[in-house]
Amino acid sequence: MEVKNQNSLWTMSKRARDVQASPIRKLVPYADEARKKGIAVYHLNIGQPDIETPPEFWNAVKNYSGKVLAYGHSQGLASYLEALSGYYKKCGLEIEPDNIVVTTGGSEAIVFAFLLIAEPGEKIIVFEPFYTNYNGFATMAGVELVPIETKAENGFHFPSRDVIESAIDSGVKGIMICNPNNPTGTLFTRDEIGMIVDIARDNGLYILSDEVYREFVYEGEHVSVFDFPEVDEFAIMLDSISKRFSACGARVGNLVTKNKELHQAAVKFGQARLCSPSLEQVGAEAALQLGSDYFQKMIGEYKRRRDVVYDGLMAIDGTVCLKPAGAFYAMAKLPISSAEEFAMFMLSDFSEDKKTVMIAPGPGFYATPGMGADECRIAYVLNTDDLKDAMRILKLGVEAFNKR
Amino acid sequence: MEVKNQNSLWTMSKRARDVQASPIRKLVPYADEARKKGIAVYHLNIGQPDIETPPEFWNAVKNYSGKVLAYGHSQGLASYLEALSGYYKKCGLEIEPDNIVVTTGGSEAIVFAFLLIAEPGEKIIVFEPFYTNYNGFATMAGVELVPIETKAENGFHFPSRDVIESAIDSGVKGIMICNPNNPTGTLFTRDEIGMIVDIARDNGLYILSDEVYREFVYEGEHVSVFDFPEVDEFAIMLDSISKRFSACGARVGNLVTKNKELHQAAVKFGQARLCSPSLEQVGAEAALQLGSDYFQKMIGEYKRRRDVVYDGLMAIDGTVCLKPAGAFYAMAKLPISSAEEFAMFMLSDFSEDKKTVMIAPGPGFYATPGMGADECRIAYVLNTDDLKDAMRILKLGVEAFNKR
Repeated sequence: MEVKNQNSLWTMSKRARDVQASPIRKLVPYADEARKKGIAVYHLNIGQPDIETPPEFWNAVKNYSGKVLAYGHSQGLASYLEALSGYYKKCGLEIEPDNIVVTTGGSEAIVFAFLLIAEPGEKIIVFEPFYTNYNGFATMAGVELVPIETKAENGFHFPSRDVIESAIDSGVKGIMICNPNNPTGTLFTRDEIGMIVDIARDNGLYILSDEVYREFVYEGEHVSVFDFPEVDEFAIMLDSISKRFSACGARVGNLVTKNKELHQAAVKFGQARLCSPSLEQVGAEAALQLGSDYFQKMIGEYKRRRDVVYDGLMAIDGTVCLKPAGAFYAMAKLPISSAEEFAMFMLSDFSEDKKTVMIAPGPGFYATPGMGADECRIAYVLNTDDLKDAMRILKLGVEAFNKR
Repeated sequence: MEVKNQNSLWTMSKRARDVQASPIRKLVPYADEARKKGIAVYHLNIGQPDIETPPEFWNAVKNYSGKVLAYGHSQGLASYLEALSGYYKKCGLEIEPDNIVVTTGGSEAIVFAFLLIAEPGEKIIVFEPFYTNYNGFATMAGVELVPIETKAENGFHFPSRDVIESAIDSGVKGIMICNPNNPTGTLFTRDEIGMIVDIARDNGLYILSDEVYREFVYEGEHVSVFDFPEVDEFAIMLDSISKRFSACGARVGNLVTKNKELHQAAVKFGQARLCSPSLEQVGAEAALQLGSDYFQKMIGEYKRRRDVVYDGLMAIDGTVCLKPAGAFYAMAKLPISSAEEFAMFMLSDFSEDKKTVMIAPGPGFYATPGMGADECRIAYVLNTDDLKDAMRILKLGVEAFNKR
């Protein structure tokens, strides 16, 4: 019998061929090898906090009295939407339940936002270095990321309006920001967010604002895109409980927009996949009752960790890193030729007192080939004693790497 | 300042404009209105089982001893992948942990499968009536569904090989089947699945096989696509615990393929969104220990319900419905002019003893305009006493509708 489709016999789609392997997770086998050799690995490579998920979350989940774990509403459980609105109001943001769609982690919020504003082939501006999974979401949604460089020497703050506007062409539909920033730890000023709002308004672009680290601020103030009333028509905020309540495995995030048409379409995307995990929304709702005490204690702890990491970096001659003011990351230019080789060296060829350190190499956070070659992202998600030891070992590792 | 993008000022993407509202959920406001008038509504419209989620699931979740709800592996928790492999082997299917990717519900498995095999604009054959959310996933992935008709008079079994092959052109990348079928309840025979395998093999197409209702079989045997060894290169199975363990709100599904290249790409899609809900995988793993006793009891209950619904349908003169042998749905051609009008009539203008029935109108399950106009999907997810009463009321409703 004739094979009609012979040219395409079980070819995989281009997007499936293109989707990147996680540049962070690809080092995991080397870490496993190190452990097999009896070497302990300090994980500074991933943003998995060690902070305990609050008892309020666990109690709500464990005392759940339902007998059937049923579908929830596609937009999110009504009581959780109310609780989120209340949380935002405590943050000074006038966000109503009907401005929100609960998503399966911040990840799904980003995918929905890409699908909402761009056709396949259209473009979204991002500032590099950026959260590496934006690449995967862009491949899945078929959109192109247009990277604009930010620099370690400048604390990874935005470049001037002229530089940003020179990247806008008719295919660009939005500008994506992350504040406080993953991977750089940069906290953007009111003037900077205002500039992005002006650029978006004057060029007819959407703003996608990733604010999952809102509370993680050590100096200065967090400015939300929704602090600017004129954005109501063209802003989409992306949010998640993962870091805020150390509940990464819950997969509870949300999307916020005051643009009713966008909101309705986001709900329809939500209807297709029925609902986000319902039991975890119950836990998240309980966690949202936590007050400023909870955040102050957590932020105090992270600030001490930030200081340990920054001091440790400054002890390495030739490092470039302005003190990060938010999130729980530092992006540092180290005196090394290749961060990727260095990361592998640390796992395969180096140890100190039977211990080593795993960092995330810079290139994974850039879209432009060749950039970030001497940079590393450090996630400070360990206690201060471990961090001090890890930074001591990192310094020794840099010296050993350069003496090879 | 010049607005560079004036033509596209905050336009929404075409896919966001195109994505369908759930044809089932759009009737919800009418049901709410009925309840406000004091009328009880029997919900035969959605596949939300009333069966309790097994205690094994709840106990595992509630006794979880971790303090941090952390990210799990992107492919799925290792122990859950092992448990799934063991479950499939009990089903007679040689599926190894490395053939599996855990997904966020069966929904995400379908989206991943669409992304894996088709480019935007490419096509996938489906048999209509089909699970209505395939439409939403196709819009999100930018793929086109090519519907092939199946008929109530024939119990919604597949048409002949010639008919199916006449729909294949160079843009078609796969054939999607659902066995046992939602929305029709049809259980496909070994010969039928074999025919699909032959067609896919001879035409270079992938098979996407939705088998979430595997255990819901009342007469005959369930045949999996993986019962045919030659499919290893081109089959993707889509699965979920939602119905099997009455845990729809958990959002735990999985994708199975023995094609290593497809599997690796699916894991990369998974890495972008980090992981599926981790606590629920712990619950699902415990539920997988349940043996044939659990399923026999559940299937016995559903079979009694199926019989009540079928007898109730046969009591309505002019109904066309062959006895469904699987899943927990019946798709029936009723003696009515418009199922959509009838569904609204039942909620807005009819009640019997202060009660009415909500059904899912047929057209929502078809891609071809005008089809399914006189058909309804009935989900038998209520106990037999309620179902008997609901079918009595449905019959009275049909009579009243036709006397308007």
